[in-house]
Amino acid sequence: MAVITILGAGAMGSALTTPALRAGHEVRLWGTWLDGDILAELRAGRPHPRIKVPIDPAARLLDAAELDAALSDSDVAILAISSEGVIDVLERAVPFLRSGMPILMTTKGFGHDATGRVSLLPALLEATLPPALRKRCPLVAMGGPCKANEVAVARPTATLYASADEAEAVNAASLLATPAYRIATTADVAGLEASAALKNVYAIALGVADGLGELGGEPWHNLKAAIFAQAVAEITRIAQALGGRADSAIGLAGVGDLEVTGLSGRNKLFGMRIGQGEAASTALAAMEEVGQTVEGVAAARFAAELARERDLAGLDLLAAIEALLDGAGEPAGLLGDAVLPGRGAPAWT
Amino acid sequence: MAVITILGAGAMGSALTTPALRAGHEVRLWGTWLDGDILAELRAGRPHPRIKVPIDPAARLLDAAELDAALSDSDVAILAISSEGVIDVLERAVPFLRSGMPILMTTKGFGHDATGRVSLLPALLEATLPPALRKRCPLVAMGGPCKANEVAVARPTATLYASADEAEAVNAASLLATPAYRIATTADVAGLEASAALKNVYAIALGVADGLGELGGEPWHNLKAAIFAQAVAEITRIAQALGGRADSAIGLAGVGDLEVTGLSGRNKLFGMRIGQGEAASTALAAMEEVGQTVEGVAAARFAAELARERDLAGLDLLAAIEALLDGAGEPAGLLGDAVLPGRGAPAWT
Repeated sequence: MAVITILGAGAMGSALTTPALRAGHEVRLWGTWLDGDILAELRAGRPHPRIKVPIDPAARLLDAAELDAALSDSDVAILAISSEGVIDVLERAVPFLRSGMPILMTTKGFGHDATGRVSLLPALLEATLPPALRKRCPLVAMGGPCKANEVAVARPTATLYASADEAEAVNAASLLATPAYRIATTADVAGLEASAALKNVYAIALGVADGLGELGGEPWHNLKAAIFAQAVAEITRIAQALGGRADSAIGLAGVGDLEVTGLSGRNKLFGMRIGQGEAASTALAAMEEVGQTVEGVAAARFAAELARERDLAGLDLLAAIEALLDGAGEPAGLLGDAVLPGRGAPAWT
Repeated sequence: MAVITILGAGAMGSALTTPALRAGHEVRLWGTWLDGDILAELRAGRPHPRIKVPIDPAARLLDAAELDAALSDSDVAILAISSEGVIDVLERAVPFLRSGMPILMTTKGFGHDATGRVSLLPALLEATLPPALRKRCPLVAMGGPCKANEVAVARPTATLYASADEAEAVNAASLLATPAYRIATTADVAGLEASAALKNVYAIALGVADGLGELGGEPWHNLKAAIFAQAVAEITRIAQALGGRADSAIGLAGVGDLEVTGLSGRNKLFGMRIGQGEAASTALAAMEEVGQTVEGVAAARFAAELARERDLAGLDLLAAIEALLDGAGEPAGLLGDAVLPGRGAPAWT
């Protein structure tokens, strides 16, 4: 039995209490300064407001001010913070981390490194650690198709853990695996991280196809499937440019996660609004007003910057998504011309 | 302008009249002895009974007895017949084919060759041709994510044509491409054919996950995504065993077609019934009684036979689908244990 501290009481952080408890551990769920309302609901015995399912009361709930108590004598930290907040939270946690403590992370996205180049999060987190902890707290990235509400109620889930030293991923997996929450491992951190961040980007385009269908009253499944195939190809190309392997992009972390992200979730919903005729800026503002961050938007900007920085060719769908975000064209034409074969053919619209 | 004869007035054959007409050709749609009711509806100006959309009356409709007239002076034949009937129809058509006439085929599936081994359809069709036509009528396989109802109304569609001599696929593509119906080409006939036939098999499993969700009132998206990723891996492995390339399996013909087939269609619906608790044999009988052939069932049996014949390992999901068809276990347990990582873990159910 270990002590497992989950930092972040959002959807995924809260959901992970289920496998952690069922695997027999002491579990602490720490809420950030933005999670106060969530903890209040959970303390009142009500369902988690984001994922609408109850969280096992055996998880000890800790407030933002109790970071010390949350991490004291803990064996494992799980960072389950949004990409905008994760560096900040890690900096605050540093005084309470000890050498050798594994840091698992569900956060996905990109950032800029010290030289201003686009980087995946694990390198940025590593750089945040003080020299005494750097390379001593093994970082384990968590990916794969995991809707938080299903993890929380122990519906069967396949996930992938990655660490530069795969043995660290195997250790983490042996702590957290349950009969319903099953974990594969890999050493391909870049492949997992790139796939996980990019699936949010391409889910926007899948959502646009669904929105076009809603608008016309008939599905546009053929276009959605063509978008899906092109998305897999572009995720593979970008993952490889970041040092990742193709087999991660066409496995659970890429294809699998893209499939589930294209079925539901905020990125897909944002895309649907665009497909139904709303301007991207209007749709984004409306969603942010009700507290719904669309992580794929920031990730799309980073991915486009990365493509320019590394001179990556053939990312036509990414370019179309960027144009959609800029309001520079109509959705059906932009996406169709980006994913349909036959370059030089007349525009299909 | 060419004369294009489509053999088979089912969903896909009828749908292909749209791009063929819009590309400016004379189009003949020949119905088999099973298509009489369809032709009667079309002649009465009513929508196609299977895909519920109108077919352009500019296509000339021909009855089963008019095969001679259908193929007389025709430039291209498109075989759009179910896998059970395709050899029979080709045999009847042989007297009216001429050397050099391209034969395109939408039919997907497996059969047995003269030595009793499992084979893809193009080799079986080739063997059906008399010596004077063999290797002289270029065979072009058509694949990729094409729902027939969308092709028929010219919603944007990406498709893939394959021929052993890719130039023949390019020729066919240049005849049939329109702004909405766009065609990529490849020389990888085996990769396209294997992917196209197998997507029907694995769509059954995707349907089971949806059925489990219906049964419980909450989606099982995580399991569905894990099934999807495993399906892509197994399609790739089988396609390679048949001499196909991995890039076909992870492109339009594999991943793309699997995505669309998992959204709707008979194979998915059959799987849903199993997921909702119906025995496979009962569900199949009920669907066949209303004339709904589930092509994935026969293809699953062939694929399993192929796996044994060639000693292919690691096809756990295919084995689970075969067990489902045999009624040898309950769906959630069979599929979960086939696709969730962590072999040797306790069964998740």
